[in-house]
Amino acid sequence: MADLLWPGDERAGDLLSDDALLAAMVDVETAWLAALVAAGVAPPGADTHDLGALVTPEVRRQLSARSEDGGNPVMPLVALLRDGLRDGLRDGLRDGLDDGLGDGPGDGPGDSDAARWLHRGLTSQDVLDTALMRCSRGAVTRLRLSLRAQVEVLSRIVETHRTTPMVARTLGQHAVPTTFGLKAAGWLTGVLDAYDDLATLVLPVQVGGAAGTMAGTVELAGGHPDPVHVVHEVSTDLAARLGLVPSTPWHTSRATITRLGDGAVRCTDAWSRIAGDVITLSRPEVGELAEGTGGGSSTMPHKSNPVLSTLVRRAALTTPQLAATLHVAAAEATDERSAGPWHAEWSTLRTLLRRAVVAGEQTTDLLRGLQVHTDRMASTLHAAYDDVRAEQRSLADLVGRPAAADYLGATDAFVEAPLARAVAVLAQPAPDQSPEEIR
Amino acid sequence: MADLLWPGDERAGDLLSDDALLAAMVDVETAWLAALVAAGVAPPGADTHDLGALVTPEVRRQLSARSEDGGNPVMPLVALLRDGLRDGLRDGLRDGLDDGLGDGPGDGPGDSDAARWLHRGLTSQDVLDTALMRCSRGAVTRLRLSLRAQVEVLSRIVETHRTTPMVARTLGQHAVPTTFGLKAAGWLTGVLDAYDDLATLVLPVQVGGAAGTMAGTVELAGGHPDPVHVVHEVSTDLAARLGLVPSTPWHTSRATITRLGDGAVRCTDAWSRIAGDVITLSRPEVGELAEGTGGGSSTMPHKSNPVLSTLVRRAALTTPQLAATLHVAAAEATDERSAGPWHAEWSTLRTLLRRAVVAGEQTTDLLRGLQVHTDRMASTLHAAYDDVRAEQRSLADLVGRPAAADYLGATDAFVEAPLARAVAVLAQPAPDQSPEEIR
Amino acid sequence: MADLLWPGDERAGDLLSDDALLAAMVDVETAWLAALVAAGVAPPGADTHDLGALVTPEVRRQLSARSEDGGNPVMPLVALLRDGLRDGLRDGLRDGLDDGLGDGPGDGPGDSDAARWLHRGLTSQDVLDTALMRCSRGAVTRLRLSLRAQVEVLSRIVETHRTTPMVARTLGQHAVPTTFGLKAAGWLTGVLDAYDDLATLVLPVQVGGAAGTMAGTVELAGGHPDPVHVVHEVSTDLAARLGLVPSTPWHTSRATITRLGDGAVRCTDAWSRIAGDVITLSRPEVGELAEGTGGGSSTMPHKSNPVLSTLVRRAALTTPQLAATLHVAAAEATDERSAGPWHAEWSTLRTLLRRAVVAGEQTTDLLRGLQVHTDRMASTLHAAYDDVRAEQRSLADLVGRPAAADYLGATDAFVEAPLARAVAVLAQPAPDQSPEEIR
Amino acid sequence: MADLLWPGDERAGDLLSDDALLAAMVDVETAWLAALVAAGVAPPGADTHDLGALVTPEVRRQLSARSEDGGNPVMPLVALLRDGLRDGLRDGLRDGLDDGLGDGPGDGPGDSDAARWLHRGLTSQDVLDTALMRCSRGAVTRLRLSLRAQVEVLSRIVETHRTTPMVARTLGQHAVPTTFGLKAAGWLTGVLDAYDDLATLVLPVQVGGAAGTMAGTVELAGGHPDPVHVVHEVSTDLAARLGLVPSTPWHTSRATITRLGDGAVRCTDAWSRIAGDVITLSRPEVGELAEGTGGGSSTMPHKSNPVLSTLVRRAALTTPQLAATLHVAAAEATDERSAGPWHAEWSTLRTLLRRAVVAGEQTTDLLRGLQVHTDRMASTLHAAYDDVRAEQRSLADLVGRPAAADYLGATDAFVEAPLARAVAVLAQPAPDQSPEEIR
Repeated sequence: MADLLWPGDERAGDLLSDDALLAAMVDVETAWLAALVAAGVAPPGADTHDLGALVTPEVRRQLSARSEDGGNPVMPLVALLRDGLRDGLRDGLRDGLDDGLGDGPGDGPGDSDAARWLHRGLTSQDVLDTALMRCSRGAVTRLRLSLRAQVEVLSRIVETHRTTPMVARTLGQHAVPTTFGLKAAGWLTGVLDAYDDLATLVLPVQVGGAAGTMAGTVELAGGHPDPVHVVHEVSTDLAARLGLVPSTPWHTSRATITRLGDGAVRCTDAWSRIAGDVITLSRPEVGELAEGTGGGSSTMPHKSNPVLSTLVRRAALTTPQLAATLHVAAAEATDERSAGPWHAEWSTLRTLLRRAVVAGEQTTDLLRGLQVHTDRMASTLHAAYDDVRAEQRSLADLVGRPAAADYLGATDAFVEAPLARAVAVLAQPAPDQSPEEIR
Repeated sequence: MADLLWPGDERAGDLLSDDALLAAMVDVETAWLAALVAAGVAPPGADTHDLGALVTPEVRRQLSARSEDGGNPVMPLVALLRDGLRDGLRDGLRDGLDDGLGDGPGDGPGDSDAARWLHRGLTSQDVLDTALMRCSRGAVTRLRLSLRAQVEVLSRIVETHRTTPMVARTLGQHAVPTTFGLKAAGWLTGVLDAYDDLATLVLPVQVGGAAGTMAGTVELAGGHPDPVHVVHEVSTDLAARLGLVPSTPWHTSRATITRLGDGAVRCTDAWSRIAGDVITLSRPEVGELAEGTGGGSSTMPHKSNPVLSTLVRRAALTTPQLAATLHVAAAEATDERSAGPWHAEWSTLRTLLRRAVVAGEQTTDLLRGLQVHTDRMASTLHAAYDDVRAEQRSLADLVGRPAAADYLGATDAFVEAPLARAVAVLAQPAPDQSPEEIR
Repeated sequence: MADLLWPGDERAGDLLSDDALLAAMVDVETAWLAALVAAGVAPPGADTHDLGALVTPEVRRQLSARSEDGGNPVMPLVALLRDGLRDGLRDGLRDGLDDGLGDGPGDGPGDSDAARWLHRGLTSQDVLDTALMRCSRGAVTRLRLSLRAQVEVLSRIVETHRTTPMVARTLGQHAVPTTFGLKAAGWLTGVLDAYDDLATLVLPVQVGGAAGTMAGTVELAGGHPDPVHVVHEVSTDLAARLGLVPSTPWHTSRATITRLGDGAVRCTDAWSRIAGDVITLSRPEVGELAEGTGGGSSTMPHKSNPVLSTLVRRAALTTPQLAATLHVAAAEATDERSAGPWHAEWSTLRTLLRRAVVAGEQTTDLLRGLQVHTDRMASTLHAAYDDVRAEQRSLADLVGRPAAADYLGATDAFVEAPLARAVAVLAQPAPDQSPEEIR
Repeated sequence: MADLLWPGDERAGDLLSDDALLAAMVDVETAWLAALVAAGVAPPGADTHDLGALVTPEVRRQLSARSEDGGNPVMPLVALLRDGLRDGLRDGLRDGLDDGLGDGPGDGPGDSDAARWLHRGLTSQDVLDTALMRCSRGAVTRLRLSLRAQVEVLSRIVETHRTTPMVARTLGQHAVPTTFGLKAAGWLTGVLDAYDDLATLVLPVQVGGAAGTMAGTVELAGGHPDPVHVVHEVSTDLAARLGLVPSTPWHTSRATITRLGDGAVRCTDAWSRIAGDVITLSRPEVGELAEGTGGGSSTMPHKSNPVLSTLVRRAALTTPQLAATLHVAAAEATDERSAGPWHAEWSTLRTLLRRAVVAGEQTTDLLRGLQVHTDRMASTLHAAYDDVRAEQRSLADLVGRPAAADYLGATDAFVEAPLARAVAVLAQPAPDQSPEEIR
C-alpha cells in the first residue's frame, strides 16, 4: 500500500519500493553470476536464471529482521539465497540450477556452484548501490516523461495565451501589465531547465569489491592471462545486463548520488513555482486560474480546493532538505566505505525520487486541467489601469512622447525562446517507456 | 514489513505506521461521536463502539487511492466509514450500532445515527493532527524509556571508569590525559539534556472544526443554553478519551509540531555524539572501545564493524534536515489552513520520530554491550606521556613548582553533576509502558 | 556597516559582530585573569583591567590574517595580547599593569605578570564559546523584548477586533466566517509559544581547559589545599563577572548551542506566520490588511509593497537550515573537541541570531503600523455568504433547527486563553534593557 | 576585515563583499546608460563613465540605513546616485558628465541627462541579480582555478603512490589492501566531477524591467521602427559590457541561482571527502598522513592539528543547508517577483560561494603540503596481514589455487581513468585569471 501520509504516493507505484529494490538486488546477484560465467571465471553451473524464485515471503520477513546485524540488507540476503540454493528443496528451482553438488572441498551435500559462487567478488555496497541505480533509472525516466508531457501542454498554453493580458504582480502587488502567455512561458522555462538538468545524469553500475579494488575478482580470475582485463570485462558485462553505465568504483565519490538528488529537486522547484502561482491566482478574490477538478472538503460542500497544487508545493518544501542530506553524506564519506553517511543515503534518495515522481505527474494533471479565466484577468487589469500604467506615463514624459496604446513590452517576443527550446525537446525521441525501464 | 532501506526499522514496530495512524484516525472519529453523545449533542444511537471493524482491507486499499482527491486521507476515510455504517451489511457490526434506520428526512434505508453524526463538527485537520499526536505520544514514551535506560547504563559506566585514564583528543590529536569516566559523563550529559527537552513536550488534541472556530459544533449544540461551553466540554472530553491534552485550536500555530521535531533531533544529536566516539575509538589502530557484537561483512570474515554506531550516526545525519522541514512548514503556515506546508508535516514527522525511536534503542544496546579496553587506553596514554604533559610542564614552570604526579585535573569532580542529575531522573517514575501508551 | 544584502541588518547593530565578539573574547581573558588573582592562584599583578586597549586596528587586522593558522581567532589574539603586554610600549596601558618585568626565567625584559598569566588554564574553545554566549545573551534579550512588545500590541489588536467578522480561508479558498480577533489570537499564540521557548534558555560559561578536564588550572592551583575546589571557584567567579551561568565543561555536549538555534527559529516561525498572512491579505484583490508604510518601487511610483512582511518571511526561509547545521555539528561532535563541527557553529549561530533579532523588530513595527480594513473584511464575507454558510445549513438540517443568525462559533471564547497568557507575560518584569545586557 | 568567525575568510578577499556588490550594481547602472545611448534610445549625454565616483562613504552609510524601506539596496542607491548627479556638486565628476542641465520639462537646474535616464527601464531585481551574477563570475573562476590546481597536484600524488600499499578501511575497520594511489585517485575523481559540474554553469544578465516584460524599455524606444528589437539589442549589449551571457528575463525561474549553489556544494563535498580522510589518517595512532604545517594549540605546544582539513570539513557541513535554502526560495518563487524568497537568496548565495572559494584554496594548500608516511602505511598493512587476506584465502579455496602474492586487484588499473580525465582538463586553457575576472 502506498504511503497514507503522502496522498498521491500511489502514482509512484512500486518505484524504488522495498520489493523493487529487493528484486533489483537479486537481479544484480543473478547478473553477476552470469557475467562471471560468461567471462570464464565461474563454472557454467554457477549461472542461475531465477534467484528471484528464492525470495519467498519468509525470506523477505527475515531480511528486515536480520539486516540490522550487518548494517545493510545485502548480507542477510546473500545468506538466505545461499541457504536456498544449498537446500535444493525448491523443486521448481532445482531444474534450473547446476547439479554439481558436493564437488568442492569443504562443501556439504546439496551445495551447488551457484551457492558457492554467489556474490563472490562483490561486496554489499556493490549490490545496494547498483540496485539503487537500477531502480533510480526508472524514476528518472518517469521524471523525464513528466517533464516532456508538461513541455507539450505548456507550449500549447503559451501559444493560446500569448496575447492574453493580465496584471503582473511583484511582492503580491499589482505591477505592470503582462500576458498569461509570458507567465506560462516562465513556467515552461523552469520545466525545460529541469529537463536539461536530468539529461546530464549518468547511472553507473557499482563494482568495486570489498573496498573498491576488485581484488576478489582478480583473484578469482587468477588463471587468466590478464586478470585485470577480466575485471573490466565482467564489470562492463554487468552494466550491460542491468541497463546501466560501466564505471570504475565510486564507493566514496558520491557525486552520482548528489547529482540525482539535485536533479530531482530542480524538478520540484520548477513544479512548485507553477503550483504556487495556481494557488495564488485561484484565490476567490483573484479567480484568474482554477484547477480543473478542485478537491472538496470533508465538511464544506462548496469548496473547490487547489489540491494538486497543494500537493506539489508540499513536495517542494521537503525535497531540498533531503538533497542537503545527500550532500552532507557525500561530504562525510571517509575511508573506503563510510560509517553512517553511506547508510543515510538509501532511504533519503528513495523518498526524494518518489516524491519527485509523484509531484511530476500531479503537475502534468494540474496543467492539463488548468482553467484560465481570461475575463477575470481582463477585469482586474482594467480596474488597475491607472496604477499599472504609472511607470509608462513617467517614461513617456521622459521621452516627450504620448504613452503607447499598450504597455506589454516584449511579452510577445519573450515567449519565443522557451517555445523554440520546447520544439527541440519534443523533436527528441521520447524516453523508453517500456515497463522494464520505468517499473 | 519494516523499511528495508533503514536497517533496524523493525524496532519501531507499528509506531506511526499507516495502520497505526489509520487506527488512530478511526479512534478520533469514534471518540468524537462518544463525546457528542455524552454532551447531549448527538443522540445516543450515534455512539458506536467499533468503527474500527469497518476498516476492511478493501477500505484501506481505497483510502490510498482516493486520498489524493481531497489532499488528505481523512476525507475518503469519512466517506468510506459512512458508507460502511449505511450499508448495514456487516453482520457482526450491525448489533453494535444504533438501529435508528431511516429516521431522518432524506436518509435512505440503512442509515444510522452514527452515519449521520460521524465527523460532524470536525474537519480533516482535526482528525489528522489529533491522530498524529496520539501516535506521537507512543513515540515520545519510547524515546523517554530509551533515554532513561541509557541514563542507567551510563551512570554505571561513569562510576566504573571514573578513574580509568585515557588520552583526550582534540581535532583528532592527543591533547592531555582524561578519564573514560569523564568522557562517558559527557555522553550522559547529552542524554540528560535530551531527556529534559522531551519532558517539556505537550501533545494536545486538535479540535477546531472547519477553520478553527468550532462553529459547526456550536451550531449542533444550538439547543443548549451555552453552546460555547458545550464546545469546551466535548473538546476536553475528546482529549481525555484519547490520552491527550485539551487545547484551543492550533491549526496554524505549529509549535506543537516543531517542538516534537526539535526534541527528537536533540535525542539523535546526543546519541550520534556517542556513536561517533565509538566509531573513532574502535578503529583497530586505537582499539579503546568496541561494540559488544560487531557486525560482519558480506565478504570479509574477520571484520567486526561498529554497526550499531554506524546506524545511529546515520540517523543523526538525516534528522536535522527533517526538523528543518517542519520549521519551514510552520513558517509558511498562512491562512486558517495552509496549502502545502501542513501537508508536508505528516510524513516528515513520522519519519523523524521513527528514526529517533530506532536510534534510541540501538544506542541503548550499544551502551549495554560496549567493551572498554582499559589496557589500550593505558598504553596509548603511556606512549603519549611526553606530549600530553607538555602543557603541564609549562604551567609548572610558570608557578615554579614541580609538575604534579598526574594531570587529571577535575575529571573526578566533573562527573558528579551528571551523576546527580541521573539519580534524579531515575528517582522519577518510569514512563507508562503499557501497550496502549507505547504501541 | 551592516550587511548590504540583508536589508534591515542595521537593526542588529553590533550584536555578535566581529567587534563585539572580539571585545567579548578580550573580556573573557580579562575576567579570567581577575578570577585567577581573586582565587589567589595568580599574583595580583596579573590582574589587568584594560586588555581591550591592546586591541589596536593593527591587532585586528592581524587577527583575521592569522586566525587560519590555528583554526580559530583566539590563538592569534592571545599571542597578540601577550606581545602587547610584553612590549610595554603603550604608555597609557603601562601604568595599569603590574611592573614585574623580567622576573621569570626565560622571560625577556618587558614581560609582565599579566603577559605570563594570560590565558593560562584556558583553551581557545573556552574563550570562543564563552564569548559567543556573552554576545548571545544580548541577542536573546533583544528577542525577548521584541516578543514582549508584540504580546502587548497583539493583545490590543485581539481586543479591538474580537468581534470583527471576516472570512476564514483554508488552502486559499473561503471556508467559514471567523473574526480578525481570532486570527490575531493565533498570531499571539505563536508569539507566546516562542516567548516560552526562550524562557528556558540557559547561557553558560565554558571553562574546561585543554580538553575539558581543567587540569591546567588544577596544576596552577597546586599550592592550595583543595585545587579542584579552586577550579570550581574561579569558574563560578568567571561566570559572575560575565553575567553567565556557571557550568561544568560542555566542549562536546552542544545542546547549549542547538537550543539557542532552535529557540531563534521558533521565533522566526511565529513571525513569518504573521508576515505570510499580511502578504496574502494585503494583495489588492483582498485588501483586508496593509502595512502602515508600505515600501515603494524603484520604477513604479504607485506601489505600496508589504516590505516588512517580505523581509520577515525572508528570514524564516533561511533560519531552519541554519539551525539544522547546528544540529549536524552537534551530532558530529566527536572527541574532546571536534575537527570541523565545532568550527561550523560560530558563524552559523551568529547569522541565525542576528537575523532573528532583525526579524523580531521588523515584526513589531509591522504589527504597530498594521492597517486593518474592516470594511473589506465585511464586504468579502458578505459576498461569500452562501458559500461560507453551507456547512452550517447542512448541520442545521441534521439537528432539525433553523440555522443560527451567525456562524462564528467559539471565536469570541477562543481568544481568552492567549489573552490570559499575554497578561501573565506582561505582568513579569521586562528583561533588563541596559546597554550592558543588550549591546 | 574578513569574517573573524570564519578563519581563512581573508582568502576570499573582496569577492562578493558589500563593496564588490555595490561596485557591481553601479557598473550595471553605468553599463545600462551606455547601452541605452549606444542603441540611440537615450541621448549621448546620458552616458556617464564614472558613476562609481558618486559612491562616497556617506552614500554607503545611507545605503544600509535606507535599504530596508524598499526591501533592497538598489532603490536607495538609485536615489542617491540621482541626487549626486543632480547636485553637480562634485567638481571632479562634473567634467565627465554631460552638461545638458535643465533641458527637460520639470527638471530643476542642475539636472543632467544621466540623472534623468539613470535606471530607466530597469527594476531593482535587474540590478541586483545582474550584480550578483557579475560577482559570482569571479567566484566561479576562483573555484575552477582551485579545482584545476588540485587536479595537477593530485595527478602527481596518484602517479607517485600508485603502487604504495596501505590498508583500505570500511566502517573504520581494516578491510583489504589497497594503494594510496587509488585512494588519491578517488579524491581526484571527486575533484574532476566538481570541475565538470562547474563547467556547465551559465551566468546570465537579468534584464526584465518592472515585471519581466521590458515594457519600460520598449516605451523608451518607442520612436524606433522595431522597439522590441531594441530591447534585444540593449540587453545583449549590457551582457557584453559586463562579461555575462545574454538572456531573456528569469525573474522567477531561479535555476540560475540553484545551479550555482549546487555547483559550489559539489565542490565542498569533494574537498571535505579529502579533508575527512586526512583528519582520520593523521590521528597519531594511524599516522599515515599529516598536514604539511599543522596548526598549533593555544595551550598545548606539542600539537600539530590538521587545521586546513578541519576548516575545509567545517565548510562542507554548512554549505548543503545553504543550497537547500536557495532551492526552497526557488520553489516558493510566486508571482513576477516573490515576497521573501527572492530576498533570501542574496546573502545565502554570497556566503555559500565565499565559503566554497575559501575551502578550495585551503584544499589546494592541504594537498600541496600533504605528508605521506609510507612507512606507517606499510607497517599497519603488515600487522593486519592475516585479516586483510582472509577474503583472498576463501576465494583461493573456491577456485582451488594458491593465493596470489599480492591482493591489490585492479588498483593500478583503476587510477588510469581519473588520470586520463586529469590530462584532458589540464590540456584545456586555464580560466582567465585577470583581476577583472577574479576580483
